[in-house]
Amino acid sequence: MKYPNGIKKGNNNLITHSNRGMSLEEDLNQTNEYYLLHDIANIHKKPTSITIKKVDYTKNDMICEAYFKTPSTTDYNGVYKGYYIDFEAKETRQKTSFPLANIHKHQIEHLINIKKHGGIGFLIVKFTLLNKIYYLSIDDLENYLNNNQSSSIPISYFEKYGQLIEEKYNPRINYLTCVEVELNERNNRKIS
Amino acid sequence: MKYPNGIKKGNNNLITHSNRGMSLEEDLNQTNEYYLLHDIANIHKKPTSITIKKVDYTKNDMICEAYFKTPSTTDYNGVYKGYYIDFEAKETRQKTSFPLANIHKHQIEHLINIKKHGGIGFLIVKFTLLNKIYYLSIDDLENYLNNNQSSSIPISYFEKYGQLIEEKYNPRINYLTCVEVELNERNNRKIS
Repeated sequence: MKYPNGIKKGNNNLITHSNRGMSLEEDLNQTNEYYLLHDIANIHKKPTSITIKKVDYTKNDMICEAYFKTPSTTDYNGVYKGYYIDFEAKETRQKTSFPLANIHKHQIEHLINIKKHGGIGFLIVKFTLLNKIYYLSIDDLENYLNNNQSSSIPISYFEKYGQLIEEKYNPRINYLTCVEVELNERNNRKIS
Repeated sequence: MKYPNGIKKGNNNLITHSNRGMSLEEDLNQTNEYYLLHDIANIHKKPTSITIKKVDYTKNDMICEAYFKTPSTTDYNGVYKGYYIDFEAKETRQKTSFPLANIHKHQIEHLINIKKHGGIGFLIVKFTLLNKIYYLSIDDLENYLNNNQSSSIPISYFEKYGQLIEEKYNPRINYLTCVEVELNERNNRKIS
């Protein structure tokens, strides 16, 4: 069973989520913080989508009943050199392919729609056991989906069409270098 | 005392928020839905910023302890004709001015930063008792803040520098017409 936003089900039925290990999400948050501090871009993770049902104002405005919602958009968006940036980041423990069940259908539709409006949409996929992170443009994701019935994308497709992002100390996951490659391709298409 | 995201404190200490009256937020959500359905823009409200402390997996993954966070960014962002759009929307029951306490300092800083990165940032302010809605660009907001020590912006400033948005049936609050005016001004500045 899948849980939203990297929250994992533990052995207890009631668990606390204050301390989790360093995840792709945390690395991306630190990267985005680096971009912000160094005046490179302004990109943020959106808060978790929830429906609030009850708030207890006697306990510091504690939300005491709320539910996770299926997100209708992606987790990250923002602005880089005036361009609208929008992406979803996913981790998988698979070694040979990325299961498409990891990403909601309407999140893919959202990214395709972003492209239509002139934005830059992509996926960041981390194969955790291989320690490899790929950038895959929405164009290449769409091409795959249009030409394959498979429920997963083989890693060879990422190797061929995606861009490998090397993890560094700071910024951790410098995905804007991949965006730059894509912008150059766009501009070259305009010129030719 | 201020409550985040339009949630109002009732007479009971424990209240349900499923049915609220039609608010600026709902009008903007419907407007954004109109823009999306008519292929005009892809702009969304971000979920409420919360910190999740406890989830009860025996009760449909119910969030049973969470707290509101001070938002570090604005509520709305997205893409229009390739441009990055970012804004905050506020209602006030004041008739002569908009109290700056309604908007967090770092939300203003965020909008200024958005402008720096080439995005289009603005405020939408509704004077509910006057039934008037204004668009105020981040440039004009910044100008006001740089030249005034006041803790509120008089409505005359909105009348002079802002753009009045007439409420309509569909889309309810057609704020992209104001963005168009701003884009034209930008382009004219580039040409001259």
